[in-house]
Amino acid sequence: MTLALDTAAQDLLFREARTANTFTDEPVSDEQVQAIYDLVKFAPTAFNQQPLRVILVRSTEGRERLVKHLADGNKAKTATAPLVAILAADNEFHEELPRLFPHFPAAKDVFFSERPTREGSAALNAALQAGYFIIGVRAAGLAAGPMTGFDAEGLNKEFFADGEHSVVAVVNIGKPGDEAWFPRSPRLEYDEVVTTV
Amino acid sequence: MTLALDTAAQDLLFREARTANTFTDEPVSDEQVQAIYDLVKFAPTAFNQQPLRVILVRSTEGRERLVKHLADGNKAKTATAPLVAILAADNEFHEELPRLFPHFPAAKDVFFSERPTREGSAALNAALQAGYFIIGVRAAGLAAGPMTGFDAEGLNKEFFADGEHSVVAVVNIGKPGDEAWFPRSPRLEYDEVVTTV
Repeated sequence: MTLALDTAAQDLLFREARTANTFTDEPVSDEQVQAIYDLVKFAPTAFNQQPLRVILVRSTEGRERLVKHLADGNKAKTATAPLVAILAADNEFHEELPRLFPHFPAAKDVFFSERPTREGSAALNAALQAGYFIIGVRAAGLAAGPMTGFDAEGLNKEFFADGEHSVVAVVNIGKPGDEAWFPRSPRLEYDEVVTTV
Repeated sequence: MTLALDTAAQDLLFREARTANTFTDEPVSDEQVQAIYDLVKFAPTAFNQQPLRVILVRSTEGRERLVKHLADGNKAKTATAPLVAILAADNEFHEELPRLFPHFPAAKDVFFSERPTREGSAALNAALQAGYFIIGVRAAGLAAGPMTGFDAEGLNKEFFADGEHSVVAVVNIGKPGDEAWFPRSPRLEYDEVVTTV
């Protein structure tokens, strides 16, 4: 037992969880999404910046606005998933820093006055949070189907009229349906990934 | 019980885990790192691309090469952490795709023949994997101290002579020491992050 996390939790979050391509029609409630958020919100970001923003797509109109920007291979499954979450980085996250990083409120201006710096930091930290979010979906006993095959500029304009957000991933969420996944593809071996100096 | 994950695991990974700034001198073994990797390697990446590469810094010389590129505020804690991991994106990850994504080996050329596209995908997916890695460190009962305060170009050149890797984060790892963290800073409320369309 090298890990402190119990085996059932290891399986739920990593070993048995799979990226789902089909779903049952069992709904995903706002309460479930709130429980996911209220768990993963504690995971760390640089300067506690928390740039991730989430749009839950529930309406028929919203679904149509989303699907038209997806790669063809992602359209059918996204049209029928019980819930779809658009994960985006808020490139103006620094406006919240005086509240979120109270022991150094000047961080907003010292580190993030330049837009390219903000965008880079928001992209990295929103991606970290997307990773936490996927784990959180699994913690709720649901399957996640994260996708990056979409017209990013189109989605940004469609859902974020302010021009201040960058979509990082779209995630289908629900209970896995029939033939929900392919056989698992190989993972890199430890020695291919980890070196020591 | 909206979540399927047991409460002890929720606490271990998210609620009680904190970003550590001090550590005890208890070592972190290669076996622990391998157990972390062998758990988090299963979490998803686009095209199963797995761009994350990890350098474990164990030697005195390696520690000196690392610390000199860090922001001043990160130097002392990184000089004394039991183990430090440099997390980087391999911008040539596509070379492994025919093996890692066997049901569409042409993905290597169809989607990733252009370096800027590869870099963008590697940055996003390595950041996702960095999120999984931080959760994995916590799953091992250890504290993570992830940092982005460093000279990225300097670190890239120092540790990746091939010019094909981009450091995304540096993570101190160990058992938390005395006064290991500040009081937890506020998190955004659900309604500030999540909207529905």
